Amino acid sequence: MKRFRCEVGVPLAEQKELGHNRWHPDIPPLYEVGLGDEVILEAGGYDDYQLKDVDDDQDIRDFDLTRTHPMAGPIKVDGVKAGDLLVVDVLDIQPLSGIGYSNILPGMGGPLADRFPGGYKTVWDLHGTYATSRMIPGVEIPAISHPGVIGVAPSQQLLDQWNRREDPLIEQGLAGPRADARDTAVLRTLEGKEWERVAETAARTVPPRENGGNLDIKNLSRGSRVYFPAFVDGALFSTGDFHFAEGDGEITWNAIEMDGVGWYRFGVIKDGMAKYGIKTPMLRPSPIDPNFGTRYLSFTGLSATGEEQRYLDSTMAAVQAVEQCIEYLTKFGYTPEQAYTIISVAPCEMHIGGIVDIPNAAVTLKLPLDIFDQDILPK
Amino acid sequence: MKRFRCEVGVPLAEQKELGHNRWHPDIPPLYEVGLGDEVILEAGGYDDYQLKDVDDDQDIRDFDLTRTHPMAGPIKVDGVKAGDLLVVDVLDIQPLSGIGYSNILPGMGGPLADRFPGGYKTVWDLHGTYATSRMIPGVEIPAISHPGVIGVAPSQQLLDQWNRREDPLIEQGLAGPRADARDTAVLRTLEGKEWERVAETAARTVPPRENGGNLDIKNLSRGSRVYFPAFVDGALFSTGDFHFAEGDGEITWNAIEMDGVGWYRFGVIKDGMAKYGIKTPMLRPSPIDPNFGTRYLSFTGLSATGEEQRYLDSTMAAVQAVEQCIEYLTKFGYTPEQAYTIISVAPCEMHIGGIVDIPNAAVTLKLPLDIFDQDILPK
Amino acid sequence: MKRFRCEVGVPLAEQKELGHNRWHPDIPPLYEVGLGDEVILEAGGYDDYQLKDVDDDQDIRDFDLTRTHPMAGPIKVDGVKAGDLLVVDVLDIQPLSGIGYSNILPGMGGPLADRFPGGYKTVWDLHGTYATSRMIPGVEIPAISHPGVIGVAPSQQLLDQWNRREDPLIEQGLAGPRADARDTAVLRTLEGKEWERVAETAARTVPPRENGGNLDIKNLSRGSRVYFPAFVDGALFSTGDFHFAEGDGEITWNAIEMDGVGWYRFGVIKDGMAKYGIKTPMLRPSPIDPNFGTRYLSFTGLSATGEEQRYLDSTMAAVQAVEQCIEYLTKFGYTPEQAYTIISVAPCEMHIGGIVDIPNAAVTLKLPLDIFDQDILPK
Amino acid sequence: MKRFRCEVGVPLAEQKELGHNRWHPDIPPLYEVGLGDEVILEAGGYDDYQLKDVDDDQDIRDFDLTRTHPMAGPIKVDGVKAGDLLVVDVLDIQPLSGIGYSNILPGMGGPLADRFPGGYKTVWDLHGTYATSRMIPGVEIPAISHPGVIGVAPSQQLLDQWNRREDPLIEQGLAGPRADARDTAVLRTLEGKEWERVAETAARTVPPRENGGNLDIKNLSRGSRVYFPAFVDGALFSTGDFHFAEGDGEITWNAIEMDGVGWYRFGVIKDGMAKYGIKTPMLRPSPIDPNFGTRYLSFTGLSATGEEQRYLDSTMAAVQAVEQCIEYLTKFGYTPEQAYTIISVAPCEMHIGGIVDIPNAAVTLKLPLDIFDQDILPK
Repeated sequence: MKRFRCEVGVPLAEQKELGHNRWHPDIPPLYEVGLGDEVILEAGGYDDYQLKDVDDDQDIRDFDLTRTHPMAGPIKVDGVKAGDLLVVDVLDIQPLSGIGYSNILPGMGGPLADRFPGGYKTVWDLHGTYATSRMIPGVEIPAISHPGVIGVAPSQQLLDQWNRREDPLIEQGLAGPRADARDTAVLRTLEGKEWERVAETAARTVPPRENGGNLDIKNLSRGSRVYFPAFVDGALFSTGDFHFAEGDGEITWNAIEMDGVGWYRFGVIKDGMAKYGIKTPMLRPSPIDPNFGTRYLSFTGLSATGEEQRYLDSTMAAVQAVEQCIEYLTKFGYTPEQAYTIISVAPCEMHIGGIVDIPNAAVTLKLPLDIFDQDILPK
Repeated sequence: MKRFRCEVGVPLAEQKELGHNRWHPDIPPLYEVGLGDEVILEAGGYDDYQLKDVDDDQDIRDFDLTRTHPMAGPIKVDGVKAGDLLVVDVLDIQPLSGIGYSNILPGMGGPLADRFPGGYKTVWDLHGTYATSRMIPGVEIPAISHPGVIGVAPSQQLLDQWNRREDPLIEQGLAGPRADARDTAVLRTLEGKEWERVAETAARTVPPRENGGNLDIKNLSRGSRVYFPAFVDGALFSTGDFHFAEGDGEITWNAIEMDGVGWYRFGVIKDGMAKYGIKTPMLRPSPIDPNFGTRYLSFTGLSATGEEQRYLDSTMAAVQAVEQCIEYLTKFGYTPEQAYTIISVAPCEMHIGGIVDIPNAAVTLKLPLDIFDQDILPK
Repeated sequence: MKRFRCEVGVPLAEQKELGHNRWHPDIPPLYEVGLGDEVILEAGGYDDYQLKDVDDDQDIRDFDLTRTHPMAGPIKVDGVKAGDLLVVDVLDIQPLSGIGYSNILPGMGGPLADRFPGGYKTVWDLHGTYATSRMIPGVEIPAISHPGVIGVAPSQQLLDQWNRREDPLIEQGLAGPRADARDTAVLRTLEGKEWERVAETAARTVPPRENGGNLDIKNLSRGSRVYFPAFVDGALFSTGDFHFAEGDGEITWNAIEMDGVGWYRFGVIKDGMAKYGIKTPMLRPSPIDPNFGTRYLSFTGLSATGEEQRYLDSTMAAVQAVEQCIEYLTKFGYTPEQAYTIISVAPCEMHIGGIVDIPNAAVTLKLPLDIFDQDILPK
Repeated sequence: MKRFRCEVGVPLAEQKELGHNRWHPDIPPLYEVGLGDEVILEAGGYDDYQLKDVDDDQDIRDFDLTRTHPMAGPIKVDGVKAGDLLVVDVLDIQPLSGIGYSNILPGMGGPLADRFPGGYKTVWDLHGTYATSRMIPGVEIPAISHPGVIGVAPSQQLLDQWNRREDPLIEQGLAGPRADARDTAVLRTLEGKEWERVAETAARTVPPRENGGNLDIKNLSRGSRVYFPAFVDGALFSTGDFHFAEGDGEITWNAIEMDGVGWYRFGVIKDGMAKYGIKTPMLRPSPIDPNFGTRYLSFTGLSATGEEQRYLDSTMAAVQAVEQCIEYLTKFGYTPEQAYTIISVAPCEMHIGGIVDIPNAAVTLKLPLDIFDQDILPK
């Protein structure tokens, strides 16, 4: 089995087996495999080893967002043509160094970032199937490990479309910068003019797109299968941003982030994009996801609260459910920072309840009860 | 056990044991119970018996939306004061007549209503734990029965707030009319001046609000428990709009709608609103919800597609996932109307994947495989 | 939909729509259905209305075992021939009177009967999805309702085989009497000579056999499907002995026993016995069984304890696990009688751990934690 | 984290960090830990590296049973006294070499060994969460990894009792030899007279006993917790015989056997044996066991078949269910050897249905459907 190593603690730009941190069809493949082949890929965490296992949180204040996400790949899959579906079996996801981080980054901490201007850092010890943190005692998070980033290369045409539609938001500060972030682009072995040409238009990895990418889907966990539309021949598969666990919504913008090891197997469905009408990734969940049965407490959020009213805004409803849950958890001794973090990293479910009962959208946030060492049911 | 009957086929306004179809604190209680007591409440479906078990779909074109939702209640619970939490155990939900309806109402059919201007009607036979429809052969939907509407009375102050914040949307046509719908208001036994006074400001039942109401949460099913903030003494509990089954999002605005029987038990958590910081309903799921294990296919939607781009719009992402799923199902012989209906009524899950990866929100729609009598996995 | 009624409180022998309580191929059908047809069948509990909803337990001391089990049927299914598989969908199981009983019958109370010579009676109130009992406060059992008895008629040849192999055990008192129990045989409308001829060799209903019968499988619950070998043309389906809930093993010989209503649909697999090699019933579980996730405590039992040692005796191992669980529950305030009853009626799982590690068999008994209103985990 | 290594391919007797393969209180501890501490323990498979990853099956014919099971340990836990409960968290179980074996050993292949006199060998490739075998194409087994052997040392008194009760069976050949197997006893660092003294009475590891040991419980998987009665001070914990996956019953006497790595954490419940009446291990299942939902096919077995009849013999009933399942699977192209192996290694459930319906015990065998790449439901 071919395995590509990541040296723990070393930034992507200095790794021997170079990966990349931008999307572009012209990034040279790391490796070429055939149908049915497997490969094991290691990668640093989303932070590119900027975070340190110390209580001091200077690292989250100095954080350079443009270095996210170091990806392993691209893997070129022989036998896959543009228009096919690339079938990827996520055979395993494991921690590499055994340390995890979840942060409320100052100014980049999700919808409630304003409530936590100083940010908040959490370090997790990964003990096999469970994570614990000295910053959040009394909580034990079971693994639902998955790659936050998993995707294929866009075609040039698709890349151009991304840039066209995102540029206006970049200008308004509603999406991460591309040109201003060029210096930290790592594009495998590209250098000089080729590096410049590709870096110019290569897409940042933060938003998920038609190629997958930063999907942040907790159920894309070890044992699941993903069907990707292939936009270029060979598909050019890449992965990284491993998560030990995450809640639906990844509300603080951080899961339990870790450097990790992914084990993948590749297959194809010929002409699958047209045959099945697939334009975005489709997936089958794993049989070994955590099963909490009935042991959840669900909070509801609406797109209206107090005097505020929006029209079918599910994002607002989700945030309201999160606010309700934070308030609840503070009654059991957790600080708002801890509560917000728990909601982001525990295998919470965030279900869209209704987006048709005008004018209010409703979202339910299901919090698993058994991650706590105290009983948090109301009495 | 006290049981309140609903005569099958008879509109709310003509029922002997009158309920109501608007929210207001001054609607006289139907019945008074103590803590620990149980009551069985029957109610007509959301359509107030406008729909008929015939293939002709004139009924969905003539549909009077202002007659929704006929509710049984209010039940006044002795021992509950404003500020407490009313604890409601949903002991059972069963069909009454055994017929279910799911419609794409012309012009009121959810986010894709424009694609189906003529609407689409589906009649379901409810055979115990499964529903089948002559309009959608080859599909069998397992029961996850629940009350679409379940809630408590608002205080006058809360009701005023609702009206203040919704009035601007009503004027824009983004929320259902209140004044223009006054004629069909049924307010239990109120008559004359009292009826006029209450009908004037009583809230429509369509949107879910802080009191619960039209929550449309599929997992609020038989065996679950709900904690409601009590806004008035006695809480004044009402319920109706029974669903045999529903998917997260209830995307066509219709579940498998049925007249039904709800069995409820009441308890209290004194001063629970302050003690636990509860402002919206909180719930514990049932141990007997359908468990499909790993047997789902998940579709992903983003708040960007083609040249269109929005900022963290989860509602758009959800709709994109629905569009992707409809396109997929048409490859297996279902019409778009059938596919859209299946997604709305089967126990699909719609998870918020990420609402922090600017600028794209992501939503996954999990479709259960085992409701189909054919294998719909890609080959 | 054809529905056959059972009058509550009336013994089988006096019911208007007569059923039967013995197995024999010559019992005249109650009704004839075609493939795809459904039928609703009511039946009294296994006790044939000998038990009373009073605290006094004279009824369990006077209990006439020969009156078990009153069955509804037989239903003759047109289109099913001997050698086919009869496919039965258990569309629903509901209580009839709403009262349940679970007893430790004196002398007939399972492997630990000797510990409870006086027996023990429990009456349950069935509140929709939950059962509670004034005899066992603090416990709430979720429904996993199923027919304890469900089966098809044996052929004459199979019936003869049963009698041949069971007669020696009857003589030793290791199986219930047949000839001595003849007087209480109810064989539908048979009378006189025909009744005598059939009653002579008709099989008692207590043991499960190749035709199904008293299978007592808790997961044969509402929503499941059973494939029965058909031994005679028309299959001759019968059912009864409804259980609200039961644990694997039904260790006291009683589930939460109830009179009930079963809703069944019939199909066929032609020549299925030979095609699939089926000689005993095969089944598919329901998607709506209780799901307790991880919330169990498992007790282990072996075929050895103290100085006693048996060779791979799973029954002894199961009983040891039950003894261990009873002892544990007494530490939380339950009497041994209550504990033994809980294990028999709650949806416990009893798994065969190993029957190959000579000389010890091992069995694990999984007790669901969430049926208790106290935390029974060790601290 | 302290980690004890096992050199791949090297028999226990030649390993540097010596373990043991017999139970005795006087085997010197490998390591001493405190409460809350964790340790990682590697061990060879049950075969002590006798099996080879080749198609030739000479290895299973030459198999020396007396070398089972190589165990890592004992770990002495400070703070645990005899009479306490030792709490062990199974934090992780992973493969070591990545190869698994499942055998029908000639003459030691479970209850149906006679049907397969030549035995049958299967080699499995462990790809992260799934195992596949070139000997059984079309089957993929999801991981439910666990230690087959996990236990604590017996006290001298308990050990004496074991020997007293097992000696008569050893003489009849119904349990493995002790004295005749003395030569292969490995007892950590003991030598000379001490080795002789301890080897004389040390117990074989094959049967599970009050101390746990060869429990072969598939749900004692990564993420579970076990409560062991401590019979000696320090408890003296040992483990080995790792299984990638197993079915209830481990019917061929083999799971997917592997060398592996176990990660354990230790705690205590003081005086727990008396406080909770615990005499055998008790366990809490893992939240991340495979969840197949409803996707099983269940076979039933009875303690009667044809002309054969036994009294409440659950072991016979289990074997009958296995026979029925083998016959069924052969209709789908599997050989009896393959079928028997699948039942033993896939996460099948084997439930005791009833052991009170005299004279017939009933057992159901639940076979997961989704391990097959073909649809094995009857049509």
